[in-house]
Amino acid sequence: MSRPDPFAPERPARVAAVRNLLGVLELDGILVQSRATSRYLSGFALRRGDESTSGYSGALLVTTGGSWLLADNRYVEQAAAEASEWELVFTAETLPIELPPLLEKAAIRRLGLEADRTSRAAWEALAAATAPAELVPVESELAELRVVKSHAEVDAIERACALGDQAFDYLVSTVRPGMTERGVARLITEYFEDHGAEDLAFDSIVLVGARASMPHGTPNDSPVQAGQALLMDFGCQVDGYRSDMTRTVFVGEPDPLARHRHELVAGAQEAALATTRVGAPASAPHQAAQAFLADAGYPEAFRHGIGHGIGLETHEPPSLKTSNAPLRAGMVFSVEPGLYLPGEIGIRIEDIIVLEDGGPRLLTNSPRHAVVIGERQAA
Amino acid sequence: MSRPDPFAPERPARVAAVRNLLGVLELDGILVQSRATSRYLSGFALRRGDESTSGYSGALLVTTGGSWLLADNRYVEQAAAEASEWELVFTAETLPIELPPLLEKAAIRRLGLEADRTSRAAWEALAAATAPAELVPVESELAELRVVKSHAEVDAIERACALGDQAFDYLVSTVRPGMTERGVARLITEYFEDHGAEDLAFDSIVLVGARASMPHGTPNDSPVQAGQALLMDFGCQVDGYRSDMTRTVFVGEPDPLARHRHELVAGAQEAALATTRVGAPASAPHQAAQAFLADAGYPEAFRHGIGHGIGLETHEPPSLKTSNAPLRAGMVFSVEPGLYLPGEIGIRIEDIIVLEDGGPRLLTNSPRHAVVIGERQAA
Repeated sequence: MSRPDPFAPERPARVAAVRNLLGVLELDGILVQSRATSRYLSGFALRRGDESTSGYSGALLVTTGGSWLLADNRYVEQAAAEASEWELVFTAETLPIELPPLLEKAAIRRLGLEADRTSRAAWEALAAATAPAELVPVESELAELRVVKSHAEVDAIERACALGDQAFDYLVSTVRPGMTERGVARLITEYFEDHGAEDLAFDSIVLVGARASMPHGTPNDSPVQAGQALLMDFGCQVDGYRSDMTRTVFVGEPDPLARHRHELVAGAQEAALATTRVGAPASAPHQAAQAFLADAGYPEAFRHGIGHGIGLETHEPPSLKTSNAPLRAGMVFSVEPGLYLPGEIGIRIEDIIVLEDGGPRLLTNSPRHAVVIGERQAA
Repeated sequence: MSRPDPFAPERPARVAAVRNLLGVLELDGILVQSRATSRYLSGFALRRGDESTSGYSGALLVTTGGSWLLADNRYVEQAAAEASEWELVFTAETLPIELPPLLEKAAIRRLGLEADRTSRAAWEALAAATAPAELVPVESELAELRVVKSHAEVDAIERACALGDQAFDYLVSTVRPGMTERGVARLITEYFEDHGAEDLAFDSIVLVGARASMPHGTPNDSPVQAGQALLMDFGCQVDGYRSDMTRTVFVGEPDPLARHRHELVAGAQEAALATTRVGAPASAPHQAAQAFLADAGYPEAFRHGIGHGIGLETHEPPSLKTSNAPLRAGMVFSVEPGLYLPGEIGIRIEDIIVLEDGGPRLLTNSPRHAVVIGERQAA
């Protein structure tokens, strides 16, 4: 990470918000273990797949007056480079061994812990090791700190989304009949790598024809063929912030029914976006899309939630299916209706929006109509 | 998954072992949520990155007389194809809503739950939803079922390791000065994809020169350069089973000190392997390698555990640093000493072995001496 960190200016305010939470929850300290919140606060980023094999790594401890980053020897250099504002605690043992002396040093009697990110077994082990200190479950409070994005955060997501749009342009001009789902997924990976993305946001989903009726299917060696739909769901990371978009294109001119169904999904997305307003219940877009598709004769074909918050995690609050909390300005989330007909076809259109006072602003800007690819090559 | 499942013949015995556990722990049922154990028992595999956005997916419920697989609509088709022996329960809601009727139907009063894979928050929510049923923590007991590998499992790991060896051959003949760490990591990904691997086992680690002193560093655009060491740590999946290997090669002839240090790491690995015997304490190989490097003048340079079990997870029991439990025949694990000198160099040699009655049998077979690459191209 030799280039400047765009979030350095706002990190003090982020940590101050955690300190404010200490007062609200009557805690002496909070231990942050989730990778995303840890990066949000400190800049220190563990990689996907990093696991504890030596000492304990990646946790932050925030108190009114102090801030510590726990990292084992594997991360000594990285932690010093990425999170220089934090006091490093080098660990060689597990958290139940490393944490008690730190709690004593910081005079912590009530410690907040992410109950949704800490296993029940780890919680019990820590509780036994840190007694008489009391462990207090903290859940939505920390995620809540990240749910409304700053301008710098929206900017990072927008840059990730712009890379996604560029990747889509590239795919439209490059994907041809005969390529496999896995081959197309590789093109996506390479495009993002070659154009400055830090990583993928998630394993790309590329599915042809009836296979796309599995909303989370895994790409295999099925070939792209003329006359089929091709669903591509992909995203990348820029400065840790994610993009996520889906387009369903047609290999050669689709038949009228397929085109009609694609228009229905686009219509469902428009219906959802029309209800996406500051103050509207978070479930309104889902209900609007569901009702639109039901009215069109497909009451059972939309088989997942309409969207999810996105930021330092691909899926983060708000949930747009289960929550009735009001939508707020600065929230960033996906709007992704789909129509899945097993054995026949799967169509999904997914965009990312930032909610502004005037309504949703789209951060992904690829065409939402039915794009036809590879016409000439399609035999 | 159209090709035959090599583990189908042993799945009944695997489920029987879980049923035996019900008796031992006086449980009416066990809910399995971890992806690896779920795949081990049923064959149903969620992908890396799959998350709950709709109903709850991927859990198994095993009772004395029944076996159920919970999956939301996104996985309807996949579950039917991959886990046809299981009774499918299609979910549309969260686990605390979906589980109680099932517990009632199966007359479960004491339910085992993976305490190390269930968050404290999820545990509390389930406990409230399923009362008066009692939730009983199950931890090492399920992992224990997977710790000794069957012949079919060793075979799958061996196939994954053989692909790793082939990838190493390919890298030795292909990597040249001027390529970046990320470029080399991409070669690894492509090689595995092109040669039948299901997926990577983990994000490849490729580090040049002093950067390799970060044992878990992230590949960036640093170029491979003549006169440097190049550390490559990579693995793939075959039928879900993982490989994992590390080689540190030299770009052009290394100086005598670098060659000496590489020999020391190879020596530390030999020392570790010499103590790797059925019945030896699991920590013996680590201590042997540590002592070897300390005797050679590097008491602080080996900064992680010597190894980890490997199977359906890249890191799984046994732990070879912290456990003194006796090593058993059929265990499969890595032996990976390293020497890390910040600012100077990092060297690691990692192999996978299966422990047999006669001693360790290496499943990775690439050269363990200092391999020199790209000599002619190195200016």
